[in-house]
Amino acid sequence: MRRSRAITERVSNMPGTRARRSDAEVVAAVRAAVVEELAEVGLGRLTMDGIGQRAGIAKTSLYRRWDSPQAILLDALHAGFPQEQPAPSPTDDLRHDLIQSLRLMVAWLGTPAAQATAAVLTERARYPELAEAVYTQVFEPKGGRFTGTVLRHYADTGRIDPDRLTPVVLDIGEALVLKFALDSGELPDEQTLADIVDQAILPAADRRA
Amino acid sequence: MRRSRAITERVSNMPGTRARRSDAEVVAAVRAAVVEELAEVGLGRLTMDGIGQRAGIAKTSLYRRWDSPQAILLDALHAGFPQEQPAPSPTDDLRHDLIQSLRLMVAWLGTPAAQATAAVLTERARYPELAEAVYTQVFEPKGGRFTGTVLRHYADTGRIDPDRLTPVVLDIGEALVLKFALDSGELPDEQTLADIVDQAILPAADRRA
Repeated sequence: MRRSRAITERVSNMPGTRARRSDAEVVAAVRAAVVEELAEVGLGRLTMDGIGQRAGIAKTSLYRRWDSPQAILLDALHAGFPQEQPAPSPTDDLRHDLIQSLRLMVAWLGTPAAQATAAVLTERARYPELAEAVYTQVFEPKGGRFTGTVLRHYADTGRIDPDRLTPVVLDIGEALVLKFALDSGELPDEQTLADIVDQAILPAADRRA
Repeated sequence: MRRSRAITERVSNMPGTRARRSDAEVVAAVRAAVVEELAEVGLGRLTMDGIGQRAGIAKTSLYRRWDSPQAILLDALHAGFPQEQPAPSPTDDLRHDLIQSLRLMVAWLGTPAAQATAAVLTERARYPELAEAVYTQVFEPKGGRFTGTVLRHYADTGRIDPDRLTPVVLDIGEALVLKFALDSGELPDEQTLADIVDQAILPAADRRA
């Protein structure tokens, strides 16, 4: 907790006598602060004051980079979401790469940023534009569907039939990971990820499975 | 809203001069009240007083049937969850029955009881025993997995290979319905349910698909 820090600290590189954090450190502190603040006070009470106080940044400094608490939140969710690779490894092994893409999803689900993302989507009815922005500004620029990114890569290279990659099929892996987490309160282990790939994704996506 | 009703109304059939609701009407009013109360005040502030006031029932009357607000909530969620049929129709048509079982799930998802169930599962970290009770006292006694109930029926009659009915495969349909609802904020339409069955469940469960 940084509540006791001076809020006169500056985002810019103006000279001063205080020990200052670098620009990147300040941005990281603000992103961490908005995620913590959301967990503590909820979406309806997210303010520039609350975020600034938690990060130890003057509100005027926050406004130099972001124009609203929602903009800070989206920035933090974007920074916390993994950048998906079309082919996470050069193995040319569809099964391996699908499991790897689900591992990337599970690693993300364990982060505070993922909890914050879930909180926004849960409140979709009250904040529809913010939920929509999570899709357009967070998920889609980074790839958007972990297994879908891999499946499209293998369709592009002729390994699987692109006609099989319907919206439903592109969603199977993520849907099963989320359902497992919902039912068990835990993240799926390695064996479960392999079962999801072998028993659900490959039979649907790959005629040879 | 029934807040203005006299709270001296009785659950029992004791004679009295007031117009009284039947036992079944009172139980239905209490079940509706706990679901409304949960949506308004949240799980942490659910009380016998709040539920009684909303239903127009004296707290002492509530205690004759239920021993806690959580017991009332579980009763209401159980009453609101559909009783699954192993074979919803005598068509002996696997595809038809799978779509029908997803329709049953979607119809339930549109009810206030389903919203209340989701609220309990969302708060699993804070109320782990209540979330667990939703599985043991609500889902499992009624069948527990809409498509799973159908798939097990067809495995029992030799139509599909029981070895294919792994936990992952039994979860595909429900997982995709929930993911669709999460992403779109809407419930899947008929075409989406058919796509889920044709493109995901049948390829995984049925070698002939």
